[in-house]
Amino acid sequence: MVDLPELQRAPRITNLRQAMSKTSIDSFMTSDRTSVRWLSGFTGSAGTLLVTDDTLLLLTDGRYGDQAPEETAGTEIELCVGDRNRHKQVIHHELSRSATLALEADRISWGEVEELKEIVKVALVPAKGLLSDLRKVKEPEEVARLEAAATIADKALAQVVLGLGDEPTESEFARVLDHTMLELGAESLSFETICASGPNAALPHARPSTRTIRSGDLVILDFGAVIDGYHSDMSRTYAIGDVDQNRWDMLESVTAAQKHGCEIVRPGVKASEVDNACRSHLAKKNLSEYFVHGTGHGVGLEIHEAPWINSQSEDILEEFQVVTVEPGVYRPGIGGVRVEDTVLITPSGHRRLTAAPKDPVI
Amino acid sequence: MVDLPELQRAPRITNLRQAMSKTSIDSFMTSDRTSVRWLSGFTGSAGTLLVTDDTLLLLTDGRYGDQAPEETAGTEIELCVGDRNRHKQVIHHELSRSATLALEADRISWGEVEELKEIVKVALVPAKGLLSDLRKVKEPEEVARLEAAATIADKALAQVVLGLGDEPTESEFARVLDHTMLELGAESLSFETICASGPNAALPHARPSTRTIRSGDLVILDFGAVIDGYHSDMSRTYAIGDVDQNRWDMLESVTAAQKHGCEIVRPGVKASEVDNACRSHLAKKNLSEYFVHGTGHGVGLEIHEAPWINSQSEDILEEFQVVTVEPGVYRPGIGGVRVEDTVLITPSGHRRLTAAPKDPVI
Repeated sequence: MVDLPELQRAPRITNLRQAMSKTSIDSFMTSDRTSVRWLSGFTGSAGTLLVTDDTLLLLTDGRYGDQAPEETAGTEIELCVGDRNRHKQVIHHELSRSATLALEADRISWGEVEELKEIVKVALVPAKGLLSDLRKVKEPEEVARLEAAATIADKALAQVVLGLGDEPTESEFARVLDHTMLELGAESLSFETICASGPNAALPHARPSTRTIRSGDLVILDFGAVIDGYHSDMSRTYAIGDVDQNRWDMLESVTAAQKHGCEIVRPGVKASEVDNACRSHLAKKNLSEYFVHGTGHGVGLEIHEAPWINSQSEDILEEFQVVTVEPGVYRPGIGGVRVEDTVLITPSGHRRLTAAPKDPVI
Repeated sequence: MVDLPELQRAPRITNLRQAMSKTSIDSFMTSDRTSVRWLSGFTGSAGTLLVTDDTLLLLTDGRYGDQAPEETAGTEIELCVGDRNRHKQVIHHELSRSATLALEADRISWGEVEELKEIVKVALVPAKGLLSDLRKVKEPEEVARLEAAATIADKALAQVVLGLGDEPTESEFARVLDHTMLELGAESLSFETICASGPNAALPHARPSTRTIRSGDLVILDFGAVIDGYHSDMSRTYAIGDVDQNRWDMLESVTAAQKHGCEIVRPGVKASEVDNACRSHLAKKNLSEYFVHGTGHGVGLEIHEAPWINSQSEDILEEFQVVTVEPGVYRPGIGGVRVEDTVLITPSGHRRLTAAPKDPVI
């Protein structure tokens, strides 16, 4: 595996405390796995992180009694390993001097909030974007991981793509691609690989089936690798043998739309403008009605995270964000096309992290 | 793949409506992916199901405009394909005659509940176990899927287990096991396979590392296959070459504890008694302090679901539930042992779905 620079978590905590102080919030708590990992390094399935001005406390249970100290070594995090009742006591105690507690409204269940109300008297504040806003801009160490993951996906694709011409089933091809990413060092797959051929490609979220890939098909591949928790995301569409003009036009139009979208990606641009760039190119080709999803999303510890690139988005693109640009066209009975890169936003524009060529002919 | 009997969803809706009527709830809504799938058959990532006495409505977006009707064909489900605003209008309209709306408190976010309050005037009722209670007892068609998944895991293990003696790294071995399950027809893996050797086995949730498996190690394997959404779950621990007496005793004690636990599994038994059977056997061996997790859980569309087998559980085991029995012992610096079967509760006792032998010597 590539040598990866160490992640620095202390500045994240500092940034969170600053954001809290700006909005007059004096405590923050999360049990969301991604949030806990980003702030503390703890990767277990059961952790709660409590942050105040002078406290940084991770609560977990006996299963993680060894793993939690290992993963948080060298940080200022204090640990509390115990059962539910112990956690309740500690939370009650720690929050006794707080007036407000911010919770990630979109990452905590209604039931958990109701339970918390029985433990603490503090005012609960829904903080929807508090952490995800901080996570939008990637640190150099995060970019290194995202790039390593993207490179593995690129290499795996290059190794196996010609096999699409050997009439594999969708499942068979997906399995070979997955296996190759893992062999190349992916710790896991970003999501269940999509390999959708012929009419199946008209379903944006098709699962690999036993359909045999054959001449005349368009085949969408959408896949990614994970390195140290960071995801890659890439789609390519291939024309197998002789495809008819109609399908060829779809392929060319989406490829061009994706290029138009990428071209305007730079700091200060509205995310909705990138969506519009793709959408208006497809409109010229009378294909916009078949573009049934948004244009892209941020990528990081989550495969889909802020910022969001769609017509409703209020996000403004910033330097060192990492986003996908992935227009698609899906025509029932005919097939589909999606072309997607993950790009890093640079001071002057963007740099593709997924570098695989877009030559679509197999 | 095995021929699987078709799932019957109409009786599930009937049972849900009966449960609602018993508790004077006149409408129910869920966007939880598992709940939506279980009730409707829709497997997409964005679906909301609304159930009243006379309505059964699935709301989704354009990405699923083709998939949703395919997956819900032959049911009484009406579809609404549209954007967020359209969904809000429809939910507002459909609930205008309802007095109470039950929501799964543990499967809906705080933010979603707050948003819903702006759309509907109906009283919101937290219904924590409404659906998960119904899902505890498996239908014959579900058991067929759980058994098919368990059989694939068994077969894959048998094919590859002797390879543990060839000094692979944990990651290498895990990858071979995963690949074999997929080759044998698993649609995906139940979870990231655990292959934890030597000191790593002392972490209940270790991830496969680059450590080489060698003579003297205990190696925990914990893995499963998915068939049509249904999971299998199984752990075995192997002694590689000559292991010392201390580790051998741990292995024998956990194997015996697991057997004791399984032996009392039958309808009418408290889940906590199964936990106690495992725990008290380990106590006799002075190992109970190292058993840092619960004894088991239900398995179905989710890898962990009700009923719960631990000391605090109030579940009573019932016929046709499918649960794991998986005591473990974890000793920092020494290693760990976990032995786990998934069993179907039968009228007179139980039947193991995971049938792999427990001969631990490699």
